Amino acid sequence: MADHVHIQEVGLRDGLQSIAAVMPTAAKKRWIKAAYDAGLRYIEVTSFVPPRLLPQLADAAEIVDYALQLEGLTVTALVPNLKGAENALKAGVHRMVAPISVSTQHSLANVRRAPMDMVQEFGRIRECIDAQNAGTTLIAGLSTVFGCTLQGEVPIDDVCNVVRGSLAAGADTVALADTTGHATPTQVQEMIGAVRSVAGERLRSMHFHDTRGMGLANTVIALQNGIREFDASLAGIGGCPHAPGATGNVVTEDLVFMLESMGYRTGISVEGLLACRSILTEALPQEPLYGFIHRAGLPNTYSTHQRVSQ
Amino acid sequence: MADHVHIQEVGLRDGLQSIAAVMPTAAKKRWIKAAYDAGLRYIEVTSFVPPRLLPQLADAAEIVDYALQLEGLTVTALVPNLKGAENALKAGVHRMVAPISVSTQHSLANVRRAPMDMVQEFGRIRECIDAQNAGTTLIAGLSTVFGCTLQGEVPIDDVCNVVRGSLAAGADTVALADTTGHATPTQVQEMIGAVRSVAGERLRSMHFHDTRGMGLANTVIALQNGIREFDASLAGIGGCPHAPGATGNVVTEDLVFMLESMGYRTGISVEGLLACRSILTEALPQEPLYGFIHRAGLPNTYSTHQRVSQ
Repeated sequence: MADHVHIQEVGLRDGLQSIAAVMPTAAKKRWIKAAYDAGLRYIEVTSFVPPRLLPQLADAAEIVDYALQLEGLTVTALVPNLKGAENALKAGVHRMVAPISVSTQHSLANVRRAPMDMVQEFGRIRECIDAQNAGTTLIAGLSTVFGCTLQGEVPIDDVCNVVRGSLAAGADTVALADTTGHATPTQVQEMIGAVRSVAGERLRSMHFHDTRGMGLANTVIALQNGIREFDASLAGIGGCPHAPGATGNVVTEDLVFMLESMGYRTGISVEGLLACRSILTEALPQEPLYGFIHRAGLPNTYSTHQRVSQ
Repeated sequence: MADHVHIQEVGLRDGLQSIAAVMPTAAKKRWIKAAYDAGLRYIEVTSFVPPRLLPQLADAAEIVDYALQLEGLTVTALVPNLKGAENALKAGVHRMVAPISVSTQHSLANVRRAPMDMVQEFGRIRECIDAQNAGTTLIAGLSTVFGCTLQGEVPIDDVCNVVRGSLAAGADTVALADTTGHATPTQVQEMIGAVRSVAGERLRSMHFHDTRGMGLANTVIALQNGIREFDASLAGIGGCPHAPGATGNVVTEDLVFMLESMGYRTGISVEGLLACRSILTEALPQEPLYGFIHRAGLPNTYSTHQRVSQ
């Protein structure tokens, strides 16, 4: 029996927060529904940030409410701080990911707090969840793990320290993000080894950007090292406002194609994902979309590979 | 000491043969010189085919003559048949690669000969080299190894049979090409294992197309399996006239960036390669160019990685 790999669509958060255009709420709902119909069961649907900072995500509560109606969908939101976590809890998300940037310079630029101050805030979010007996999963989303456009190198020891801190502060799981597209296959292997020695099985998922075309190569290395959960964005939209040149996440449809054709099971239809792209084209006509499978089409051997894997 | 990886630029052959525009001979020479100056020491400079079939490469002999003047450059040409090999020998190439398509349908469409008929022709090329005591290296370039847009699946046994045949017919080394962009990381691993059991160390190099974005992922797997020679095209130009949707080769500058940042040594400057792109832009203004590093730039950690690796 083939390994299952969980894919979380993050385009609605990471993608939409980093482009100037505002996607209409109705289009976001169509996207969530189409992604769900294509088989996605994990979607990071929004971020609970003040609307004056990110008007693109001002409809966070309404979007969560909509997503919660889809049976079997695990609804995740990003929460930059305690206030955001309170709002996310109120909205009823299943999981929240609180970002902690390991690069001090990136952390200060992004949330005006040093990494260890964010770990303290993380602890307050944990207390808030526990006080409400909410049962919400709390993910430590470590960002700029593989390098930083502001700081340059990010030492592995710094990453491990933040992992230790966030676990002590109550993280259920840890996700590692290559926010700025610095990661190389060699680094991914070393980083997973180092973080696993601290976090064990709580190191759960990877979030790669495809800035320099290595997103899939990095994914293959992470798979070899036991990772079975990955973030991705439909059509690769996304980036980071504080990381110039950091283009979008790994393209969801390309990632699913690669995994399925390697014999992994995702439960997701590539054809279904390709169909979703028209929602982006219509709602964000100015936005560049990415992806190889969209251009080349599925190979004539694709269904055979899928049969082999099942 | 870090492993050395040999990169062969094939854009002048695989790239230029599959686009309608004809690059002026003077521009080809500028490209060869700029690639050489960037550190490339292996270039597949042309193909010896009848000019009426490929007017883009009608200057084959002149291009080889120019390339042979660059000290330390290994000059390779593709030869589709004995006649082409005779012309390549006359021109004085160091290496010739004779393609043998493993897919019968692709072979018939491409050269109007079945794979085993091409193996026989390959034997005649070997005899021709030996009769002249030329010392030219003869490479069996197996194409459509991972799938075929016409035939679909290409069984591993068929690949191994063609490898056996070409070795018996006198191949010095074997190269495996994903002509149509079907290869997945899983397949690459299986294929290298199977072919190596037949060819041993004579399995030397891989030629990946990036049709579905997996060129670098496939390269990483090939590296893990001991391959240290790869073909690539500047700016990813290339394809296959008999494989619709088969976009270009792996992008040379992206490949060199990945290898260097993983700690391998290529002897090639990414900056030098990026500078080469302007030759293509000027000589082929209509042609789409590809590549991630060109768009994103080198990360601020790049020189550090290089230092670590040296």
